[in-house]
Amino acid sequence: MSNIRGRFSKPVDKIVATYTASIPFDWRLYKQDIAGSIAHARMLARQGIIADKEAETIIGGLASIREEIEQGKFEFKAELEDIHMAVESRLIEKVGEAGGKLHTARSRNDQIALDMRLFAREAISSTIAALKELQRALIGLAEDNKDTVMPGYTHLQAAQPVLLAHHLLAYFEMLQRDIARFSDCLKRVDVMPLGSGALAGVAYEVDREFLARELGFSQVSQNSLDAVSDRDFVLEYEAAASIGMMHLSRLAEEIVLWSSAEFNFIEIDEAYATGSSIMPQKKNPDVAELARGKTGRVYGSLMALLTTMKALPLAYNRDMQEDKQGLFDTVDTLLSTLEVFAGMIKTLRVKAENTANAAGQGYILATDLADYLVRKGEAFRTAYDIVARLVSYAEARGKTFAQLSLNEFKEFSSLFGEDVHSVTVESSLAARNITGGTAPEQVRRALADARKILEQK
Amino acid sequence: MSNIRGRFSKPVDKIVATYTASIPFDWRLYKQDIAGSIAHARMLARQGIIADKEAETIIGGLASIREEIEQGKFEFKAELEDIHMAVESRLIEKVGEAGGKLHTARSRNDQIALDMRLFAREAISSTIAALKELQRALIGLAEDNKDTVMPGYTHLQAAQPVLLAHHLLAYFEMLQRDIARFSDCLKRVDVMPLGSGALAGVAYEVDREFLARELGFSQVSQNSLDAVSDRDFVLEYEAAASIGMMHLSRLAEEIVLWSSAEFNFIEIDEAYATGSSIMPQKKNPDVAELARGKTGRVYGSLMALLTTMKALPLAYNRDMQEDKQGLFDTVDTLLSTLEVFAGMIKTLRVKAENTANAAGQGYILATDLADYLVRKGEAFRTAYDIVARLVSYAEARGKTFAQLSLNEFKEFSSLFGEDVHSVTVESSLAARNITGGTAPEQVRRALADARKILEQK
Amino acid sequence: MSNIRGRFSKPVDKIVATYTASIPFDWRLYKQDIAGSIAHARMLARQGIIADKEAETIIGGLASIREEIEQGKFEFKAELEDIHMAVESRLIEKVGEAGGKLHTARSRNDQIALDMRLFAREAISSTIAALKELQRALIGLAEDNKDTVMPGYTHLQAAQPVLLAHHLLAYFEMLQRDIARFSDCLKRVDVMPLGSGALAGVAYEVDREFLARELGFSQVSQNSLDAVSDRDFVLEYEAAASIGMMHLSRLAEEIVLWSSAEFNFIEIDEAYATGSSIMPQKKNPDVAELARGKTGRVYGSLMALLTTMKALPLAYNRDMQEDKQGLFDTVDTLLSTLEVFAGMIKTLRVKAENTANAAGQGYILATDLADYLVRKGEAFRTAYDIVARLVSYAEARGKTFAQLSLNEFKEFSSLFGEDVHSVTVESSLAARNITGGTAPEQVRRALADARKILEQK
Amino acid sequence: MSNIRGRFSKPVDKIVATYTASIPFDWRLYKQDIAGSIAHARMLARQGIIADKEAETIIGGLASIREEIEQGKFEFKAELEDIHMAVESRLIEKVGEAGGKLHTARSRNDQIALDMRLFAREAISSTIAALKELQRALIGLAEDNKDTVMPGYTHLQAAQPVLLAHHLLAYFEMLQRDIARFSDCLKRVDVMPLGSGALAGVAYEVDREFLARELGFSQVSQNSLDAVSDRDFVLEYEAAASIGMMHLSRLAEEIVLWSSAEFNFIEIDEAYATGSSIMPQKKNPDVAELARGKTGRVYGSLMALLTTMKALPLAYNRDMQEDKQGLFDTVDTLLSTLEVFAGMIKTLRVKAENTANAAGQGYILATDLADYLVRKGEAFRTAYDIVARLVSYAEARGKTFAQLSLNEFKEFSSLFGEDVHSVTVESSLAARNITGGTAPEQVRRALADARKILEQK
Repeated sequence: MSNIRGRFSKPVDKIVATYTASIPFDWRLYKQDIAGSIAHARMLARQGIIADKEAETIIGGLASIREEIEQGKFEFKAELEDIHMAVESRLIEKVGEAGGKLHTARSRNDQIALDMRLFAREAISSTIAALKELQRALIGLAEDNKDTVMPGYTHLQAAQPVLLAHHLLAYFEMLQRDIARFSDCLKRVDVMPLGSGALAGVAYEVDREFLARELGFSQVSQNSLDAVSDRDFVLEYEAAASIGMMHLSRLAEEIVLWSSAEFNFIEIDEAYATGSSIMPQKKNPDVAELARGKTGRVYGSLMALLTTMKALPLAYNRDMQEDKQGLFDTVDTLLSTLEVFAGMIKTLRVKAENTANAAGQGYILATDLADYLVRKGEAFRTAYDIVARLVSYAEARGKTFAQLSLNEFKEFSSLFGEDVHSVTVESSLAARNITGGTAPEQVRRALADARKILEQK
Repeated sequence: MSNIRGRFSKPVDKIVATYTASIPFDWRLYKQDIAGSIAHARMLARQGIIADKEAETIIGGLASIREEIEQGKFEFKAELEDIHMAVESRLIEKVGEAGGKLHTARSRNDQIALDMRLFAREAISSTIAALKELQRALIGLAEDNKDTVMPGYTHLQAAQPVLLAHHLLAYFEMLQRDIARFSDCLKRVDVMPLGSGALAGVAYEVDREFLARELGFSQVSQNSLDAVSDRDFVLEYEAAASIGMMHLSRLAEEIVLWSSAEFNFIEIDEAYATGSSIMPQKKNPDVAELARGKTGRVYGSLMALLTTMKALPLAYNRDMQEDKQGLFDTVDTLLSTLEVFAGMIKTLRVKAENTANAAGQGYILATDLADYLVRKGEAFRTAYDIVARLVSYAEARGKTFAQLSLNEFKEFSSLFGEDVHSVTVESSLAARNITGGTAPEQVRRALADARKILEQK
Repeated sequence: MSNIRGRFSKPVDKIVATYTASIPFDWRLYKQDIAGSIAHARMLARQGIIADKEAETIIGGLASIREEIEQGKFEFKAELEDIHMAVESRLIEKVGEAGGKLHTARSRNDQIALDMRLFAREAISSTIAALKELQRALIGLAEDNKDTVMPGYTHLQAAQPVLLAHHLLAYFEMLQRDIARFSDCLKRVDVMPLGSGALAGVAYEVDREFLARELGFSQVSQNSLDAVSDRDFVLEYEAAASIGMMHLSRLAEEIVLWSSAEFNFIEIDEAYATGSSIMPQKKNPDVAELARGKTGRVYGSLMALLTTMKALPLAYNRDMQEDKQGLFDTVDTLLSTLEVFAGMIKTLRVKAENTANAAGQGYILATDLADYLVRKGEAFRTAYDIVARLVSYAEARGKTFAQLSLNEFKEFSSLFGEDVHSVTVESSLAARNITGGTAPEQVRRALADARKILEQK
Repeated sequence: MSNIRGRFSKPVDKIVATYTASIPFDWRLYKQDIAGSIAHARMLARQGIIADKEAETIIGGLASIREEIEQGKFEFKAELEDIHMAVESRLIEKVGEAGGKLHTARSRNDQIALDMRLFAREAISSTIAALKELQRALIGLAEDNKDTVMPGYTHLQAAQPVLLAHHLLAYFEMLQRDIARFSDCLKRVDVMPLGSGALAGVAYEVDREFLARELGFSQVSQNSLDAVSDRDFVLEYEAAASIGMMHLSRLAEEIVLWSSAEFNFIEIDEAYATGSSIMPQKKNPDVAELARGKTGRVYGSLMALLTTMKALPLAYNRDMQEDKQGLFDTVDTLLSTLEVFAGMIKTLRVKAENTANAAGQGYILATDLADYLVRKGEAFRTAYDIVARLVSYAEARGKTFAQLSLNEFKEFSSLFGEDVHSVTVESSLAARNITGGTAPEQVRRALADARKILEQK
């Protein structure tokens, strides 16, 4: 674009202009860019670097450009390269020479660092809100199914009975950690970079603390070279998002499993299911599958930026322009997945009879029998071996534990008594009465705690 | 969308429709989708599954839809979910009942597999052409600088003198392997999946060989479950593209280094360089930097799809919809990078005096001195040690090898004779006269061979 | 190590020696390294660069070093840095001065390129053999369960009935593509790099074609700079391995699902299952889970090397030492997974009654009913809608299709006739009688074809 | 291993035992495993679940096993599967029945979660210490070269002069953020999981708070299903390590560049440089290169575990065993890289004359000239254009700014006055006198602040 081609005698080749332009995606930062420029103009006037009158003209011009953009009247031409130049150009067009003063004591390098930080700050706040909304949906579902029993699985094999609410609370915990991670990331985002200039700091008496206050930051950056070449906060958002999507992919997997005919634990609401183009009977858990699939793109964007940043010498290098699309896509993917999951969970129907039925199958109480023997004085490892043989015996005869007689039990250990038949799913649940355990009392308390956390703030 | 909501009593939630719609990106497959549908209609008629008249109506309708799209008159509504439904819906709108017969003996699952394969086939052919064009640019630059000497580097330390043409030919070799990889990938792309239906094969007497011929494939898929759930060819394209971008990132790194003031080996044409918003003197190698940075996104898309495909049970799962954007972006990135590099290389100016000067610095001929001693009868490892001590000696005195007297040489080995001073950059180059070596004779032959390869086809 | 510290006045720091040493892992290349050195010595003598006698001494020394290593008598000291120096040092120790001549006309840069290529060549051959062995196991299981019917799934929802053999053949196809990819990779491995020296070619009249023949390569490298800095073949192996592990992760997922109590389709042999430390009843599909998990490490190694190679200037850089552990781990992981899967598949017991039962559930024949209507003259899209309504009707009444009366059918379309009840799982299978379809006739043919492919070579 | 094969009638296949065994790498957790078991035994006795006497016996046995391991007398047999079973087995061997009681109220699932958390806690503490040590080295180098001027770069083109100390402080800031990230990660590590059992909580009255206190944790986990299937903390460590390695790769790149003959800014101490096997003159920055290369493996391990964890249903799955090697390798790589960098930086010699010389080249003061005009009343964008034309003019005549006469300046703008020649590298530095700027006063303050931060704690 003409005004930054000053020293060149010819324009960039067209394919170069297209190749290097970021305006097709960074237009999205217009709000951040204009907010930053307004604060900058205000500061320049306050410090006497430009006249008050000029600042007013600039600010008025910027406000009207924002309006043009929001009303769809602004043309984002590829020749304008990026959002900063697009806005500056239009400003000069609108208000003349005063517009040419806006870029005093500022470079695109610190300007884009600011825009990205403003964007990331908003993204974190939306992300935390969306995480809480999904937590709310999970807790709601858990409360509505407080007494529902289901098999707890390890290795996808029924292991021990648990409450469905306990299972759902596991996801509450994961999302709670996600929130903590995004909150921690915010501390690294909350740093105001303007004043760093191209790389060495600007040669004007700017008031960086004023800029920080105006733009709502609590710190200013401490090293100009670092400030223009730091994209840690983008990587950190993407890493937290990758872990978050991993959690959602696990929930997605379970929704897919549970809505299969074989598990048949839940019914997805029709508004959250889709059909097939050829098989009229199909009701597919597409939302869960797609979320599971989208985990890939979020991981991919993290890997992409890590790769891009590898081995770049200081300070700014054009490679870093590649930070934007990955972040935008990650924010969009995570937010939309959280939103659509909240809706799906809220409308999910649990088939409590089926889950309870599954929890009663097989030898799911084997651990409880071993614990029974331990309580009668057996060493755990020996008790384990006794029950293991008991399982083989019962399985060979096609019997459940309940169908075994006391005599049969006694053949394996004389410690078995009448009370062996009081080892049930219910007793198994109730026995796990410690913090974090699946006993109904514990789960009730955990649900109440979760509610309290959700009500905070 | 209504016609695949047959069994449902309510529509999908709006956020679900947006979340699951692929039309915002898969509209790009319209040409492939319509070509596939035309071949399918033709085959259905040929087999008597639909009437000839119906086929004609369908084909006419499809052709006019393609025109609508190409003239920008087609509205891609999000409710239409994907390109297949968008086209089918419009077809029924335009031609009525006959349109409803197009989906006979076909599912979206085999249809999308076909579309992706048609797209990948074209992409490979464009990619190979673009790789060849960059090879042409490299060979052109090499031929124009046939006698230019430069330091060959290892560890970014000058190691031995080489011809610039030899250095450029190294990239020719890399691109040659890229071409081979894409060609091999084409063999796995070149498989016609229609007839696989949703997953089990269609229940009609379709003529799959006819379809293959019509659509220019040389094989038909051999297993319907595999055919609808295979995205190996997308992964393989992305893997080959990742390796290709890695090559370009190495070339990019060298262009950045060489155009620094410190190396000062080349001058990038102004049409391929950009300026700074704040520093009027800057001439930045942005194209090379951006290409180096874009390596990240190509790696990222490969990782994304590998992640997405991990552990999916057979056959089609909605997760697989995530294959598209990554492939589109990878093809676009690779093609545009190759194109812009070809232009940049063609217009590059080599500063031969500077490269030659750099090749004469330091102790770059140390290996040649060791080889000299070997030729006089010394064991290599001993010769190496002698020259190493010689380097320390000369360095401590601030002398080059050329500035050492024969007596000084002789203090390190009596094998040194008058002819030690005939060890020069030129003799060093000439000595490497084996296939693949940097001797001028070898490089001339290699350039001629490269030209021949480029002229093939 | 002393002999490559020639120009330095002090040794490397201890932590540097440890940090940079590759001997803890590249000792594994001893066989390749010694084979390469033997061929090199033979060539040097043949060309008159060393004496025949010297070559004999060297070769004898190398053979006895190989023996020392294989008998566990060789001490791999960290100070020796890498396998090349370890062997060369020991050789000089054993045979004196002649040993010092082995490194004539060779550098570690072309030497390691050779070793890695020899290793990769063997790895590919073992990999292809292991892939074939798993194919054999799959085909064996398919043949033993030729008539077993199961539900075919999309979205993990029963979609259409298929033969288990057809399902297993899908994996045969995937592995067949894997074999093709590794074979293609071999073409890029099969290039002899010796003679490239450090980077510029060696300054001796070496006979590269002789070396190629001795070492079993069909080509010699064409550019010395490229030859010492090319690791494409490692990346290509790792990319093919990643796709292969992705296939295995899908099979693993199905084994985990199928051995769950809910699916109950298969029984893993006890020799391939493991227990729990606390739950005596557990029988876990650990092998399948672990294989699924190991997919991550193979993807990770690919990502690692792609990252490492990004933006390295020519020619060799020490970064490239990082190519080894990833390749070794990938080869080990893929080979062991293939081996253990072959064993697990061979001993797998299919519960044919259960799979058949599952295939008869639900409205799995809905597509067949739509096709039935199409054959009676209905347009497919209309037929689809009719059957969709039929599904809703039946579901609301808790009836299967078989339980609906002809009158009930007729309320949805007058085209339904008596013969609607002949739409069965069997008829559904039989109808898919096209190449790649699940009709018993097709599957029989496909099995026979697979056998033929396996018997080749 | 026999004692967890209770229900099986045959042993696992040998290849399965090898494939699934984690003992070859998880032996490394022996210290954590034994510490956890001792606390567990103490708690069991305290709660009356086992006798005090038994606890004593167990604790004594465990202590002597630890000794055996540390004295290299313990045989880690592959049949023992993992470190937990290896220790338990040996314990029973040594102390008999009491040993069989240790596994009461505990599962390998919560045990391994504990071991990994103990390991991660130590790793974080070592990592933070190593980061501080490198910060110390950087600050030391900066202090020793307080007045050294160098060119600040963007796009690897000299942009504006900066102090070397300012440049080094940029890395101080990066490492400061790394420390903050690892500290935040510690909050998620600092959670005691014992009591979660296999997945549902244990059926004993355990005292989890006591365990937490004994083992130095400040919280207990709140959900048993989550506690045994949570590996977020491993991922978070790996993500922080990836960002940290990215920082080190940037520093590595600069060390490689600066020690090239072309830059010639620094001299790496001989103890941190290595030679070539064939080129006696070479002094290679191998440590920096290798660190740059190792960035790949750290990224790879992050990608590996993200992939592994994707879409795993709750709770524990065997896939998760793959968390270990990646974490171990990442910790080892990061710690050794930090250590070796600290040593290299401490011994680095800066060639201040060369960096100063480079800072005086070209038109590096162009921005300062534009700022000069702004101060005289010109709008920045206009000033920029004037100086851009001035650069073209001077460049065409081969003159520096200093060589232009006042008249020549005045042809471009009448605002230029005598004082234009007082625009120098020194004035440029001094002008950037704001927080984070490169003015000597600011850098002095920043160094002092950094020292203060390092002295804390």
